[in-house]
Amino acid sequence: MIDMKVSTANLKAVPVLRVPESAEEDNEEQLVDSVAERIHAAKKPVLLVDGEIRGLGVVPHIARLVETTKWPTWIAGFARGMIDETIDNVYGLYASKYGTDEEKAYFEGADLVLHFGPHLTNTNTFIFTTIPKAEATISFPRNGVNIGGKLHRDIPTRRFLDKLLAKLDFSRTVKIQSPPPKIKPATSALSKDLPDSGAIVQQDFFPLVSTMFKQGDMILTETGTAAYGGRLLSLPADCRFFTCVTWLSIGYMLPATLGAAVAYREVLQKSSKQNGETSATTAKTPAHSGRATLFIGDGSFQMTAQEVSTMVREKVPVTIILLNNNGYTIERAIHGRTQAYNDIAKWNHEYVLGLFGQTEEQRRRNYTRVDNWGQLKAAMDKVKVAEGGEDNGEVRLVEVFMDQEDCIGALRDLMDRQINQGPGAKGGATTS
Amino acid sequence: MIDMKVSTANLKAVPVLRVPESAEEDNEEQLVDSVAERIHAAKKPVLLVDGEIRGLGVVPHIARLVETTKWPTWIAGFARGMIDETIDNVYGLYASKYGTDEEKAYFEGADLVLHFGPHLTNTNTFIFTTIPKAEATISFPRNGVNIGGKLHRDIPTRRFLDKLLAKLDFSRTVKIQSPPPKIKPATSALSKDLPDSGAIVQQDFFPLVSTMFKQGDMILTETGTAAYGGRLLSLPADCRFFTCVTWLSIGYMLPATLGAAVAYREVLQKSSKQNGETSATTAKTPAHSGRATLFIGDGSFQMTAQEVSTMVREKVPVTIILLNNNGYTIERAIHGRTQAYNDIAKWNHEYVLGLFGQTEEQRRRNYTRVDNWGQLKAAMDKVKVAEGGEDNGEVRLVEVFMDQEDCIGALRDLMDRQINQGPGAKGGATTS
Repeated sequence: MIDMKVSTANLKAVPVLRVPESAEEDNEEQLVDSVAERIHAAKKPVLLVDGEIRGLGVVPHIARLVETTKWPTWIAGFARGMIDETIDNVYGLYASKYGTDEEKAYFEGADLVLHFGPHLTNTNTFIFTTIPKAEATISFPRNGVNIGGKLHRDIPTRRFLDKLLAKLDFSRTVKIQSPPPKIKPATSALSKDLPDSGAIVQQDFFPLVSTMFKQGDMILTETGTAAYGGRLLSLPADCRFFTCVTWLSIGYMLPATLGAAVAYREVLQKSSKQNGETSATTAKTPAHSGRATLFIGDGSFQMTAQEVSTMVREKVPVTIILLNNNGYTIERAIHGRTQAYNDIAKWNHEYVLGLFGQTEEQRRRNYTRVDNWGQLKAAMDKVKVAEGGEDNGEVRLVEVFMDQEDCIGALRDLMDRQINQGPGAKGGATTS
Repeated sequence: MIDMKVSTANLKAVPVLRVPESAEEDNEEQLVDSVAERIHAAKKPVLLVDGEIRGLGVVPHIARLVETTKWPTWIAGFARGMIDETIDNVYGLYASKYGTDEEKAYFEGADLVLHFGPHLTNTNTFIFTTIPKAEATISFPRNGVNIGGKLHRDIPTRRFLDKLLAKLDFSRTVKIQSPPPKIKPATSALSKDLPDSGAIVQQDFFPLVSTMFKQGDMILTETGTAAYGGRLLSLPADCRFFTCVTWLSIGYMLPATLGAAVAYREVLQKSSKQNGETSATTAKTPAHSGRATLFIGDGSFQMTAQEVSTMVREKVPVTIILLNNNGYTIERAIHGRTQAYNDIAKWNHEYVLGLFGQTEEQRRRNYTRVDNWGQLKAAMDKVKVAEGGEDNGEVRLVEVFMDQEDCIGALRDLMDRQINQGPGAKGGATTS
């Protein structure tokens, strides 16, 4: 064991990141001109924003394009939370055939798709159905520009977009007269007749539960039907949203929630301190308790549940919405719908918070069981924190019971195929 | 996904393992003669048995030597459960300076140490203190014979011991007249004055708790102070014992208990069936419920606790003795006695069995909290299963509270060194 004091000077130095020079420097100016010309000439353009824009450092560039052009904009799952979905011309997640016919028709009829930060995994593209047709597309993958299928390499994305934005004349970009209708799932869910005693189904659950979110919320969806159904969430402005788009590592999002919520708390404390030092009235970030909301299935929860005790110990404000659909529903949809390997041990989740550090009184107060719409609405009133409202910082757990074959979208198609094959089909037999 | 039926024929075929021919065939006979001669000539011999004998397939060979020569025999941690420690000439674990002075003096005064299946990790040798001096030792590592420090390679151990046993004339081996006194920790613990209200300490806990074991029990000790203190356990005859001797992977032994207990159940069922087919009265294996007892610390338990739910689901009879000493005691002994990184989140273990699938009534019945000797004795009466007694098959949890710096043996030395360094010493400062 070595113990010695080392200087903290290097921890304070802010590294200077320099954009490297490109090998295609001469060509780059022509490409900027060419892309700008396409943008000026487009009659029916759309924007498609994906999550690599964060790593590329171009979120502000894209936000400016979205807000200035007011062109219809769709988001890939990975980019949710990076672009404000409450803006009129932002339609939220692009879901191709799993979304509305109007949006799909409009998107596919575009004469220009600007595709930023593509991350083309099957999960992030609704099984490759949301990738726009190459001939209408200019895409911006990491350090490249792809025009109509031809990739120009070694062009730093941020530098290119800096130049492009400087070149664009927004008085020349088309004003969209007939955008597709924007559906607000949360609003439609509220107006829907969901009987108090009716069983919870994912198709209505996620829109309805979205109504409890407010500006600045942190929301996370764990792999499985939680992330799949979570595509139906309506996100508030200034939302921190994390979902799984690539590796789908089961159990990851629960400890990730702990880490993200600790980081968010530090950001809020720092922001609050900075605002306090200048003027309390000029604070840009609204007061927020830093509470994070995690959606996670019962199967995933069993992988990493013990980190709930670290949340309790570190007093990290987290609300866990546990979707209890009796096992690995996403796996049932894919293979072996009624096989024993998709069943899990039964947990009595009312003891979770007690085991993981809360007192008997706390665990009873912070656990809520939901079997129907009436109980869900009551639970939402109980756990949500109003804008600027008090938050006691305790971990809360809402267990929502759903049918073990309830799922949406592409998963629904897979599940229906399993059901139609019958119990004797591939992997469909019940083991004794 | 591919679904097709494959033949199970290969699963039924028993592989035939052939002992390979040795390159030293000519020399091997001379070596057998030489080792036999040393055994016949020894005046003060001892046996030291280590755990590689299981993989080498020579457990019966060693058992025969132990029982026939009646020479004083010691066991390394890895070999516990392979040799019956209730036999008079078997002294249990050899602990060198951490054991009794009489045993150490006798062992070190031996003119011949037969050392079988050595596994020379620091954990399995009390930090290398139990390795016998080379000049008096003939050791049998994997496929070799080491005589006085000279290793003869490529000699299959089982074949060599087959030949050696055939060659030995047990009428010529020395009869030991003055063996060292054999301490029976369990007996001494029972006769010790442990006041009902006295706090539990490891030095007396493990001997005392040994008194609840019976023939055929399966016992497991997880890495940490559980395995370290578990060296003080007295094992019953026909014991299945598993401890950690090499990698010390934290949390491993809990799911290992699940697996071992499932396997034991299958062995018992098969044995019971076979006995039933011939004659119920000739059954060699005594009736045993297959209950396994796991000793595990509170820190380790947090790593893999969820597998308790699989035990409950699969109705595997396991008793968990959870040593709650408030964090990573073994790490406190090694480094950073009062550092925050050796603290853990507080769990309320009375909810463990409830969360992991037992009913409210079951979890209350099967959880026992122990703070002192009186409660420990009551808990032992409650959880132990008498010979041939009824066992309802439920998972039981006994939580035993101990001081966070309570440990034994070499760990005690390390902890005392940490304490003597004071709070300002290496890693000893409390972080705020």
